[in-house]
Amino acid sequence: MSDTFTPSGCITLTTDFGTDSPFAGVMKSVILARFPAAQVIDLFHGVAPYDTDEAGFWLGRTYRWSAPGAVHVAVVDPGVGSGRRIVAARHTGHVFLAPDNGLLDQAFSAAGDAVEYRCLDVSALPGFELPSVSATFHGRDIFAPVAAGLAAGHYRFESLGPPAEKIVAAKTPPSRHVAGRIEGAVISIDRYGNLISNIGRGLLETLSSPRIECARRSFPLVNTYSDAPAGQLVALINSLGVVEIACAQGHAAGRLGVHRGARVTVYLSGDAS
Amino acid sequence: MSDTFTPSGCITLTTDFGTDSPFAGVMKSVILARFPAAQVIDLFHGVAPYDTDEAGFWLGRTYRWSAPGAVHVAVVDPGVGSGRRIVAARHTGHVFLAPDNGLLDQAFSAAGDAVEYRCLDVSALPGFELPSVSATFHGRDIFAPVAAGLAAGHYRFESLGPPAEKIVAAKTPPSRHVAGRIEGAVISIDRYGNLISNIGRGLLETLSSPRIECARRSFPLVNTYSDAPAGQLVALINSLGVVEIACAQGHAAGRLGVHRGARVTVYLSGDAS
Amino acid sequence: MSDTFTPSGCITLTTDFGTDSPFAGVMKSVILARFPAAQVIDLFHGVAPYDTDEAGFWLGRTYRWSAPGAVHVAVVDPGVGSGRRIVAARHTGHVFLAPDNGLLDQAFSAAGDAVEYRCLDVSALPGFELPSVSATFHGRDIFAPVAAGLAAGHYRFESLGPPAEKIVAAKTPPSRHVAGRIEGAVISIDRYGNLISNIGRGLLETLSSPRIECARRSFPLVNTYSDAPAGQLVALINSLGVVEIACAQGHAAGRLGVHRGARVTVYLSGDAS
Repeated sequence: MSDTFTPSGCITLTTDFGTDSPFAGVMKSVILARFPAAQVIDLFHGVAPYDTDEAGFWLGRTYRWSAPGAVHVAVVDPGVGSGRRIVAARHTGHVFLAPDNGLLDQAFSAAGDAVEYRCLDVSALPGFELPSVSATFHGRDIFAPVAAGLAAGHYRFESLGPPAEKIVAAKTPPSRHVAGRIEGAVISIDRYGNLISNIGRGLLETLSSPRIECARRSFPLVNTYSDAPAGQLVALINSLGVVEIACAQGHAAGRLGVHRGARVTVYLSGDAS
Repeated sequence: MSDTFTPSGCITLTTDFGTDSPFAGVMKSVILARFPAAQVIDLFHGVAPYDTDEAGFWLGRTYRWSAPGAVHVAVVDPGVGSGRRIVAARHTGHVFLAPDNGLLDQAFSAAGDAVEYRCLDVSALPGFELPSVSATFHGRDIFAPVAAGLAAGHYRFESLGPPAEKIVAAKTPPSRHVAGRIEGAVISIDRYGNLISNIGRGLLETLSSPRIECARRSFPLVNTYSDAPAGQLVALINSLGVVEIACAQGHAAGRLGVHRGARVTVYLSGDAS
Repeated sequence: MSDTFTPSGCITLTTDFGTDSPFAGVMKSVILARFPAAQVIDLFHGVAPYDTDEAGFWLGRTYRWSAPGAVHVAVVDPGVGSGRRIVAARHTGHVFLAPDNGLLDQAFSAAGDAVEYRCLDVSALPGFELPSVSATFHGRDIFAPVAAGLAAGHYRFESLGPPAEKIVAAKTPPSRHVAGRIEGAVISIDRYGNLISNIGRGLLETLSSPRIECARRSFPLVNTYSDAPAGQLVALINSLGVVEIACAQGHAAGRLGVHRGARVTVYLSGDAS
């Protein structure tokens, strides 16, 4: 492949650590101790605990807003300390580090062969020393130092380890077009209670007059939140390019009683359940 | 006006994005992709969803702790994608960007003519290109790139667009002195449950022995939290220079059952309801 | 003492401000206004309100991940505005600033004489000017400017004030070895519901086959979370080097109904209650 990675010094962090524990702060401390010129961006620490799909979805939909040359670290890691691998990916000039638990497949399955994967082998990294204490915090002990080394230009992508032939598949499959409808799922719910699905705009554009359903309700497709009166439930293509169900100035998830994982269906006009 | 803006490279962000969505992280990614030397400060992402008054209050009370030359971006934007304007303001060497929805009026109504407003017109900005996808995330697609351009010195305040003769008024009016009392409102509730009002110390200093009421209770005026025994409800002039009702080592909002918007009244001694 | 402090420019912040108030953002604004080259790390703003022990625990267990030369500011300050002192500490090339309320004793009691304490006396600091308004926000008005001055090299540790002979003791005593068992307490509960105790690995290593109890339940000691099936309650030595009670892919605190302060006991094998 011809994809190259020239480090910009920027590192983004996506985790399920929340803001009520110091784990993200500790990762930043480790990064800056090793590479003081790093620019660290807290991309998102509010992934639902253990939800590798939500993490992968956001990573895949947001990394491109950094300039190429960024290192993107995603730590949602219920299998930490087990034999699970850590994988690195390279795509469009960006490098990604994550546990091999479906997170990167959720982020990049649509990109296919354009993504190159490596199995991280820290024993091969010059000067890398694993602290002795931790079987439970690889964010601090492995991800942060490797990201610092990549961002500083000390490690090259190719030196991270051998190519990974196959990575673990995402838990939530991609949305799919079947028999006149598209089936997807609520992959994240944001602070406003908007239901964010994994159904991309590309699939929708093949439909003449789509009807969108979730929780046995259907919703008119609008252009933006303010096209609806306050309190009305609507569907729209959001800023990430996916179908979203929202309540203008309200909270759609609360109104509908819907949680992550709920089914979202887009029907061709007149082709309903 | 003689106010000038010399960019320091510092950008602060005030939003209602919370920490449970990656939108603030994406804004930072965009800023740093365009201006890698920017210093981005997360001033406050915990504004209550859609509460333009709370955002404006905090912006107006906190921006001055940055050095002049900072760009302050405030995105609480229920009307995103509608025809609502974006306005820029210049005041005491700082520049501010916000939707024209009352937020900046809440922040700066007391400053009157000392604040200069412009209507943002991105079509006039050299090199500005709007991504095609988004009718719902102007924080990423407009505010972040314009802020980066201002902080980097690529755009001047005067070039942002034509002067704005009038901006949208705040939803919550300023506190006012009427018939021997001052009437205001709870504009924010902090993590400790302190009720923060929009009644400034200036008004209070005109009173000989003020009595402060909220939720049909009145509270002794003290100098600081530790002047009261744990659990006692008190009033004080807080670090922002406004009247606050607090419970020493406790949670006043929970104790009183009070929400944002509740009335706060300051009576002249002996002049009660 | 021979400990020295050579500032790296890095400042970490640990507070109970949460993310739902702008107080941490204001502290960062003050720091960067005074020392634009500072690297500010939000180490942890989610300390439970007023919990000086939780703050001290995390500070003492995480500061070492920054490079020596960092200034660590911890503001959990129920006594702000009272006569309580502010103390500075120097240890292993790091400097710490905190109210004298037990926080630093919780962090460093085990280090004994290797920690040097000073009583902060801002009147002795050249060029230090206290803003007039605030009896309630020393984070902004004292801690942030002093930290900036230390990180910038304008103030030396020795110039902060006279040596402190004694500091206020922590509210929660250290764990202790008595009559065949170790008694400690839950000092923090993280986002995953893990119960983090103040019982260090050192004490545990003196035991042949420890049994760990909390809330009248006992837990098998495992090496890492993934050693247990999902939903099982276990104990382990966590990445901080202390005993933790966890529920694999679940929430131990919720399962056990346990809060901060609960007793944790480690028994010698066969020596149970």
